[in-house]
Amino acid sequence: MEIIEDIGRMRARAEELMVRRVDRGFVPTMGALHEGHLSLARRSGGENAVTIMSVFVNPAQFMPGEDYDSYPRTWKKDLELAEGIGVDIVFHPTAEQMYPPRRQTTVQVHELAKRLCGISRGLGHFIGVATVVAKLFNIVAPTRAYFGQKDAQQALVIQRMALDLNFPVKIVVCPIIRADDGLALSSRNRNIPAGLRPRALALREGLSLGREMIRNRNYDAQSVFNAICEHILRDDAIELDYLHLVSPETLEDVERIDDLVLIAGAIKIGGVRLIDNILVGPDGPWDD
Amino acid sequence: MEIIEDIGRMRARAEELMVRRVDRGFVPTMGALHEGHLSLARRSGGENAVTIMSVFVNPAQFMPGEDYDSYPRTWKKDLELAEGIGVDIVFHPTAEQMYPPRRQTTVQVHELAKRLCGISRGLGHFIGVATVVAKLFNIVAPTRAYFGQKDAQQALVIQRMALDLNFPVKIVVCPIIRADDGLALSSRNRNIPAGLRPRALALREGLSLGREMIRNRNYDAQSVFNAICEHILRDDAIELDYLHLVSPETLEDVERIDDLVLIAGAIKIGGVRLIDNILVGPDGPWDD
Repeated sequence: MEIIEDIGRMRARAEELMVRRVDRGFVPTMGALHEGHLSLARRSGGENAVTIMSVFVNPAQFMPGEDYDSYPRTWKKDLELAEGIGVDIVFHPTAEQMYPPRRQTTVQVHELAKRLCGISRGLGHFIGVATVVAKLFNIVAPTRAYFGQKDAQQALVIQRMALDLNFPVKIVVCPIIRADDGLALSSRNRNIPAGLRPRALALREGLSLGREMIRNRNYDAQSVFNAICEHILRDDAIELDYLHLVSPETLEDVERIDDLVLIAGAIKIGGVRLIDNILVGPDGPWDD
Repeated sequence: MEIIEDIGRMRARAEELMVRRVDRGFVPTMGALHEGHLSLARRSGGENAVTIMSVFVNPAQFMPGEDYDSYPRTWKKDLELAEGIGVDIVFHPTAEQMYPPRRQTTVQVHELAKRLCGISRGLGHFIGVATVVAKLFNIVAPTRAYFGQKDAQQALVIQRMALDLNFPVKIVVCPIIRADDGLALSSRNRNIPAGLRPRALALREGLSLGREMIRNRNYDAQSVFNAICEHILRDDAIELDYLHLVSPETLEDVERIDDLVLIAGAIKIGGVRLIDNILVGPDGPWDD
């Protein structure tokens, strides 16, 4: 496995592959790899001759007061995992190289970013995400790029950006990977205090409860919302950041569930912010 | 000469050239070609195996109330001129294709765009410019792209954007081309009422006057500014939109001229907005 730390070298390598018409799969990560990331790399490996994974904790997408400093960093272990899953190239730039002093350009996806995490974390979050992904697409020049459905809004924002700015990259969104107990895998799970870990499941349970209500033909978004909130807020160790039932295309709130709806939530537990979501409509799907 | 109207076809053509390692020079224009555009195409022809010119009047960079509708369109003549100068591919997309209904992504270069034309035309102008150029770079995938120094701020904004977003494109800025009497060539010159045409020279004269003052060791920006304004405003057919003596790197106003300074101005005459600029320092250059 090749490790590239320099932007110019990564770009040159990408061009070399491009000229040889070698398909490049790209898995952008912030490191602290878990089975979710590995599922993206595995999918990329099946669809491309070469898989490039970036490991870069992007300061621009953390808002003031967020967990940039405490975000888990497990570089040595990441390398082992990436190599084990068959990643060909790990791109690992420094923040200094990615953000030189006089930089002043941002990429912004407007409407889609003004909802859910874009409100709760601040508008700057998705500006930071869209900008770094635009940069990475230009450096890595991938054929396909892989994102997880766990960050559903991020995946939508990136799809929209790629379309709107004509990036010649196919965006592939892959299913949420969960721990045995159902908790959506996240690098931040490592930061949940051990005693609180089982209680972090409340969001997932609430989403499943919502799905059961829809299965039982309760199509009123407000009552599904109420029931989920009530379940989550039963535990006073949990702060509910947001919960929304929205169109999976526009992220606009729905009133009646007559088509697929994205139920997306964010909670805080033990100082850690976790998100999860479920995609469900009157005809299911009834499990994931 | 090949004419391509479809984005997908243009991108496929660009990839084909890329894979063959053929250098692609790119000259983005809004049509109504004049000798300024042709000088860019000529330069591109000397440095690249293939020259691609885009002709697209970009609605996104015209602010409400500006001259989008009356902007000159001379498509048939443009094709003749492009062919005559040796352009290989003309890319001519429709606005509908470039801006599909649910688009919502913009590229913004912040500080550099908040000066000169960014104030007088509105912040949206350079958002429109940066966004369309990012799109065109992704579609055309050029090795080098050519811009005129007449639009000095635009050239800086694009250079900054390319650097900040890691576009693998070399930005080449080419000298201002002038009519015999010294007026900077612009597609908008066609819209100046014939009787006012000689008086449109006032801005150019003012800039030359400023240069003479600096040659005579007057390094106080305020007095140079005053003299240029006075010259321009002598003619009451002319409205002065702005005039600034700025750093050619940051576009920040300077007080003392102890290094190269960009003197940039915009006037309105007969309903037409014209810009021009001059780059000069204590050691010249004394002509252009």
